[in-house]
Amino acid sequence: MSEGFVVRGLRRVRKLLESPGPLELEGKPLGRVRDLLRECASGVGGEVSVRQRAALLSETYQHLNDDGRTTFLSTIANDFGPDPQSVARAHADYQAAVGSDQQWTAESALRKAMRSSRLRILTQFNALPQGVKFLVDLRADLLRFLDKDPALRSLDRELESRLSAWFDVGFLELQRITWSSPAALLEKLIQYEAVHEIRSWSDLKNRLDSDRRCYAFFHPRMPMEPLIFVEVALTEHLADNVQALLDEHAPVFDAQRANTAIFYSISNTQPGLRGVSFGNFLLKRVVDDLKRDYPKLTNFATLSPLPNFRRWAESQPEAWPKAFTDADLAKIKRRLPPEMAPIASAADLAALLSAQNWAADEQLAASLQHGLTRLAARYLLTARKGEQAYDPVARFHLGNGARIERLNYLADTSARGGQQSYGLMVNYVYDPDTIEENVEAFSRSGEIAAATAIRRSARD
Amino acid sequence: MSEGFVVRGLRRVRKLLESPGPLELEGKPLGRVRDLLRECASGVGGEVSVRQRAALLSETYQHLNDDGRTTFLSTIANDFGPDPQSVARAHADYQAAVGSDQQWTAESALRKAMRSSRLRILTQFNALPQGVKFLVDLRADLLRFLDKDPALRSLDRELESRLSAWFDVGFLELQRITWSSPAALLEKLIQYEAVHEIRSWSDLKNRLDSDRRCYAFFHPRMPMEPLIFVEVALTEHLADNVQALLDEHAPVFDAQRANTAIFYSISNTQPGLRGVSFGNFLLKRVVDDLKRDYPKLTNFATLSPLPNFRRWAESQPEAWPKAFTDADLAKIKRRLPPEMAPIASAADLAALLSAQNWAADEQLAASLQHGLTRLAARYLLTARKGEQAYDPVARFHLGNGARIERLNYLADTSARGGQQSYGLMVNYVYDPDTIEENVEAFSRSGEIAAATAIRRSARD
Amino acid sequence: MSEGFVVRGLRRVRKLLESPGPLELEGKPLGRVRDLLRECASGVGGEVSVRQRAALLSETYQHLNDDGRTTFLSTIANDFGPDPQSVARAHADYQAAVGSDQQWTAESALRKAMRSSRLRILTQFNALPQGVKFLVDLRADLLRFLDKDPALRSLDRELESRLSAWFDVGFLELQRITWSSPAALLEKLIQYEAVHEIRSWSDLKNRLDSDRRCYAFFHPRMPMEPLIFVEVALTEHLADNVQALLDEHAPVFDAQRANTAIFYSISNTQPGLRGVSFGNFLLKRVVDDLKRDYPKLTNFATLSPLPNFRRWAESQPEAWPKAFTDADLAKIKRRLPPEMAPIASAADLAALLSAQNWAADEQLAASLQHGLTRLAARYLLTARKGEQAYDPVARFHLGNGARIERLNYLADTSARGGQQSYGLMVNYVYDPDTIEENVEAFSRSGEIAAATAIRRSARD
Amino acid sequence: MSEGFVVRGLRRVRKLLESPGPLELEGKPLGRVRDLLRECASGVGGEVSVRQRAALLSETYQHLNDDGRTTFLSTIANDFGPDPQSVARAHADYQAAVGSDQQWTAESALRKAMRSSRLRILTQFNALPQGVKFLVDLRADLLRFLDKDPALRSLDRELESRLSAWFDVGFLELQRITWSSPAALLEKLIQYEAVHEIRSWSDLKNRLDSDRRCYAFFHPRMPMEPLIFVEVALTEHLADNVQALLDEHAPVFDAQRANTAIFYSISNTQPGLRGVSFGNFLLKRVVDDLKRDYPKLTNFATLSPLPNFRRWAESQPEAWPKAFTDADLAKIKRRLPPEMAPIASAADLAALLSAQNWAADEQLAASLQHGLTRLAARYLLTARKGEQAYDPVARFHLGNGARIERLNYLADTSARGGQQSYGLMVNYVYDPDTIEENVEAFSRSGEIAAATAIRRSARD
Repeated sequence: MSEGFVVRGLRRVRKLLESPGPLELEGKPLGRVRDLLRECASGVGGEVSVRQRAALLSETYQHLNDDGRTTFLSTIANDFGPDPQSVARAHADYQAAVGSDQQWTAESALRKAMRSSRLRILTQFNALPQGVKFLVDLRADLLRFLDKDPALRSLDRELESRLSAWFDVGFLELQRITWSSPAALLEKLIQYEAVHEIRSWSDLKNRLDSDRRCYAFFHPRMPMEPLIFVEVALTEHLADNVQALLDEHAPVFDAQRANTAIFYSISNTQPGLRGVSFGNFLLKRVVDDLKRDYPKLTNFATLSPLPNFRRWAESQPEAWPKAFTDADLAKIKRRLPPEMAPIASAADLAALLSAQNWAADEQLAASLQHGLTRLAARYLLTARKGEQAYDPVARFHLGNGARIERLNYLADTSARGGQQSYGLMVNYVYDPDTIEENVEAFSRSGEIAAATAIRRSARD
Repeated sequence: MSEGFVVRGLRRVRKLLESPGPLELEGKPLGRVRDLLRECASGVGGEVSVRQRAALLSETYQHLNDDGRTTFLSTIANDFGPDPQSVARAHADYQAAVGSDQQWTAESALRKAMRSSRLRILTQFNALPQGVKFLVDLRADLLRFLDKDPALRSLDRELESRLSAWFDVGFLELQRITWSSPAALLEKLIQYEAVHEIRSWSDLKNRLDSDRRCYAFFHPRMPMEPLIFVEVALTEHLADNVQALLDEHAPVFDAQRANTAIFYSISNTQPGLRGVSFGNFLLKRVVDDLKRDYPKLTNFATLSPLPNFRRWAESQPEAWPKAFTDADLAKIKRRLPPEMAPIASAADLAALLSAQNWAADEQLAASLQHGLTRLAARYLLTARKGEQAYDPVARFHLGNGARIERLNYLADTSARGGQQSYGLMVNYVYDPDTIEENVEAFSRSGEIAAATAIRRSARD
Repeated sequence: MSEGFVVRGLRRVRKLLESPGPLELEGKPLGRVRDLLRECASGVGGEVSVRQRAALLSETYQHLNDDGRTTFLSTIANDFGPDPQSVARAHADYQAAVGSDQQWTAESALRKAMRSSRLRILTQFNALPQGVKFLVDLRADLLRFLDKDPALRSLDRELESRLSAWFDVGFLELQRITWSSPAALLEKLIQYEAVHEIRSWSDLKNRLDSDRRCYAFFHPRMPMEPLIFVEVALTEHLADNVQALLDEHAPVFDAQRANTAIFYSISNTQPGLRGVSFGNFLLKRVVDDLKRDYPKLTNFATLSPLPNFRRWAESQPEAWPKAFTDADLAKIKRRLPPEMAPIASAADLAALLSAQNWAADEQLAASLQHGLTRLAARYLLTARKGEQAYDPVARFHLGNGARIERLNYLADTSARGGQQSYGLMVNYVYDPDTIEENVEAFSRSGEIAAATAIRRSARD
Repeated sequence: MSEGFVVRGLRRVRKLLESPGPLELEGKPLGRVRDLLRECASGVGGEVSVRQRAALLSETYQHLNDDGRTTFLSTIANDFGPDPQSVARAHADYQAAVGSDQQWTAESALRKAMRSSRLRILTQFNALPQGVKFLVDLRADLLRFLDKDPALRSLDRELESRLSAWFDVGFLELQRITWSSPAALLEKLIQYEAVHEIRSWSDLKNRLDSDRRCYAFFHPRMPMEPLIFVEVALTEHLADNVQALLDEHAPVFDAQRANTAIFYSISNTQPGLRGVSFGNFLLKRVVDDLKRDYPKLTNFATLSPLPNFRRWAESQPEAWPKAFTDADLAKIKRRLPPEMAPIASAADLAALLSAQNWAADEQLAASLQHGLTRLAARYLLTARKGEQAYDPVARFHLGNGARIERLNYLADTSARGGQQSYGLMVNYVYDPDTIEENVEAFSRSGEIAAATAIRRSARD
């Protein structure tokens, strides 16, 4: 579609930007920027003016450093909020009208008084070709700057609310990503993969092979930007090792024989969409799509990290003795190499494990399995951060209706796996028949669905 | 995309609907519907529950008659609004915090207290495959019912605000509609055309011929539903007669030679999007697209009706004598057929014209041209409804930056044309060089851009 | 894709065409056309020259009347065939080389000597945007002109052979046609439907409803031109009346419950592709597609006309007495209205039926059912034209592996149905398990697969 | 599209293939394969049989080694050619009929007698999903085996002729390839690039940047297989160094300012399409497309290798003294490093250049420029292989209407560039105004279009 009007506008904008000085924000008075924001807020002018202003402001913004951006956003937050006095008047009218026929108009009037010009300013960017992405990135900035000015929090709430409306799951499109997808899109996967780094194009190709599936949500206005994506392996068993899953040299499995789908990596890509939730829809739609293509699939499970397990374990010395029995300790001591400091009690283990590349010593590692697995079960079932599960991945899957099925020892032997969770990984299972009740129970009372073995393992 | 989860939900819903009674609303207590709305408002359950509830409610709604729908919507409006006491508390906190660092959190808290569950209920329909269309149609109902319950006005404002966010012009796609478009889409044009009825598929095909263009805005979630569309004729003169434009037997003009684009029909199709404005973007984007394809185009104009001209003229007897000179009157009297009542003054003309098929009498019609044209010029330049231009089409184009260019006599000789405007039509011209200032002047002070001839014509 | 080179060529061509005289063919010497054909045959020049010449010749051709076109094609056929003397030399070399290592080069050389410039001329049209369609239409002309010049038969064989290569079934694409297909395409169905006329857009829409399917083969270079299409009704019984099938007011059947697919209309659209066979692939691919979407479908059958039944019956007076028993005759006589000529024997029936609107007389019609059905069975099983089945539709379906399943009386009550087959229609059944053997048996020995009832009915 | 019938067929085929022995070809009698070929040739059976046989034969073929494949193809070539006696009879009839009305039928009959079953066998593979690609690859095999059996030459001619019909340029689609093209397609570019190796995905991305273009021809039945592709750089000068063009770290040029398009790499990808020419269409269509997008482009040129220059020069000792003047020689002698063998005459230079990494010695390289350039000019203008230009790249561009514009010294400093052409490259220029006459002159009399400087340089 031709953008003649807009292009003309942009040309004028560029001229302005090339002219010396007035748009500078850093350290100087806001000058013309504040005027432009005021024009934005008032909404004067036709479409061309709107686009010109939006383009001018967005170009300015993109040329600013963090200090400049903070000033820019603070200006919007502070100068274009609702007017407390108008709010007070509208509120008085409203309360006076409660119970009468006037209540409803008064309610709308109060709502209108609360409506700030901040949002009007921000949504004007949506008229630009890349406007939605610009706003999502601007929100990412905003989240980084929150501590610099309390007013920014207000702006953030308003923007989050608008983004939630725009990114309503009804507007998102689930797409399969394959080796026939545009390279420009696949490149984004490499860039965004947050769980198990994609090391090369051949690593990527392997993850899109015929025994794999990859799905992402897209927004119609951000066509080459996956919002969240999940990588799936089709297998005939509950996967217990992520390096095996990602091995480029492993033979390709005949997907038609698969009975199990393993979600082994889920990545959110847009920090600016924090609080806008769509991840829980993703997995269910993916399950539906997989079932249609592979009617034999009956098990849907993850192979997930426990990103905070080690951090928690190191901060909970009292948890270790509960997880390691005396027999465990005795076995470990026997396996300890002579050059290592002897351990007196389970409480010493945290230090030992942090000092030592213990996983490379097969026998030592074997001696630790029982205790570490019990510790992890306890972590998953009991560790809390405020009222929530301590582990963010657990929070996501449990809130989504999954069940903790199995803990896998030495399942992620990468450096990162060791640092996060002593190499342990967990399978969450999505069982269509129990998902809904799990969701209810977890959201109502925080009740966690877990296999009996896990539950037993977590007990003293 | 498979909708297995949803489909399963819908099946359960159908069973419920087939069971006797409990969902009936008409004349009976709301029963299960209110419970469902309550569940919606609280947001309990996972995605499946949400979809099931939404599907159940939307099927119920669609089976209700107008009374049932009013009750349904009133229930939402009355029972799920904000709580006045919580609002009062949040407002007190806010006012107390003004000026302090706490102001911003307090503002967000007040906003939250104002947020009603109504919207939460409504937006859950968006999870359904046709959810957006359902909500747009529901708003159309709401607008029809506004007088039945003052609370509905509140609900309407909230829904309008959400639809405005969703139908932000940044999300709309301009598409050309051609004879190669899907028949299912073209059928909608026939159904929605609001200005000059499309009488048959061959009439439609003629409007999509090589010397014509048709454009529409679409929303990504309503793919076969044009939101607004415009029909364009490519010509080499300012068109002055709509029947000539629509003549299926007229020879096809070589569009490559065109210097003028005539927008001869613009139709809004969704009553439920009243107040959500995108029409003003449409024409500018269409101009850009036409210019790219036909670089010789220099004139962009409409051939528009004056839908309220006659109604206004009949209500303004004092306007006629100003428009018709004595010479005009004398000429008219001479042309009057003997069987007609004689006219004493211009004030009698309204009655004469309403009684008589005067347009068929060529000489009589000619004698009336001067006066009727002056009357129409006066109407366009001076008639007001409150602070706004009396004519809705004029309001649209003037607010959009166009200029009143020319009045065309006997330009719409259909029955409708006679009833609306004594057969007159008007050309509004879009001149890229003056659009922006026209928009500004019109929105600032209601100043109307018009050609000198029109201006002169409107004077006494 | 830009066609700059070509467009430039076309402009020069138009100039030539506008210049007086030299391209005229009618009644005048061929002049420049023959020169151009000679240039074509020699292949001189680059791509631009080729396209220019092709465009010039194709425009010339399209402006000629039938006489001109015949001359044009005769010129190609006569002047650009192989040279008999070169062929003689190459043939002598070939025969001399048989059995030696030289045989193979000699064979290629003979083939080359046989290769005429005719095809080189014709295939150059393929470089034009609509070139394939142009050649298909040119062949349609050729077929009409065959009797005018024996040389055209040679040209026709060469062109048929090339079109067979181009329209190899491997290049054809099966597409579903729905109400969401382009109107420009649907219009072609209305135009091309050869069996049961499509009377209006609403008739068409009814044939594309949710209990119907329509499929067509397309060639990649003729994207909006269906080559052959079939209309299918999804039902739960073997349809026995075509007017019922086409009734726009009949309720829509729930296709998910269908166990039977009725192919009720199959139309070839391109006369220029006579002898290029793809119809037999169509039905099998359609069956595969239907089975995938409706796993419950088990019966695939046609409801087909017997286009030549009446013509045959009227030419075979001796067949009637074999079909009508004395009891039949007696019944018929009783039902004859008094004003009609009495009938002495079955041989009189043909005259009676042609004189009389007998189908409107319910009782008379009932009395004729037994005999007419037997006559039709005999026609299908025994009537021959040379070695082939007399009925072209039977030939198609039997050659395709179908079985004659049932004769339906009063199944097509239109005027055309009466004229073709006394209103009878037939169901051919496609049973995947027997298709292949039926094809074999029919092509080997002309053996016809038919249900026992039909077989019995055809006996004396 | 469902392939139910076919899939069923394939299953039966697999069973056959799994059964021991009979399909083995290597060293054993052909057994069942010959029977299958015979069935193919006779065309018995319906579509299912055809596909089954084709699938069975293609699977068999693909499992054979080169010896097996040769036997397979020889069987087709020898056993299924035309029957010499039938040909003799048909030829006699034809010659007898020449001049009579019967000539034309007799011609068709002779043609029919010449038509071998070989092609019928081969084209049946086209019914398979990947059939076209299979045949193209089979032809590539055939070309490799030509020397093994003279009969294969006959088969090759027939297959080439059919492929020429199928790959008629009218059926090919020009597509732009960008970074947004499917990765599976881009991977093919990496694999097929024949001129300047693509070293990595980032090298590839650089070649698809905003100052580059890449185009390919595709056949509708081989959608992910580029048949030929060209890489273009947009610049503002005639490029003289390919390493500079391919430098990933070079700044991106603003393509809107470009006046010159450099075709710096053209690769044919399918050896099986040898003799099927479409390369000459490619560049002209690309020129048209570029001109539409960049109206400022006025120069279209290549930066091409001289792949056989060095081989020719080394075989032509007498050419060197003509290219190197005494002054040249003196200069070279002065620049020779002391450790090198002294040179007596220009004839020694070939040996010197082959022994020495002379290009790395800036001064020595400079002293050689004059002579090597003259030698290359002479090579391009005079070297012949039979009647054709010695250089295949020159043959392609000159036959295509280009002009030799400039020789570039040290233009390809890669090892390959040194080995092929002492690092020289050449610009061919495509000037739309002279292309057609160049094509004519070159094809008529071998006349070579070259800039004056080149022409002068080639003289003694």
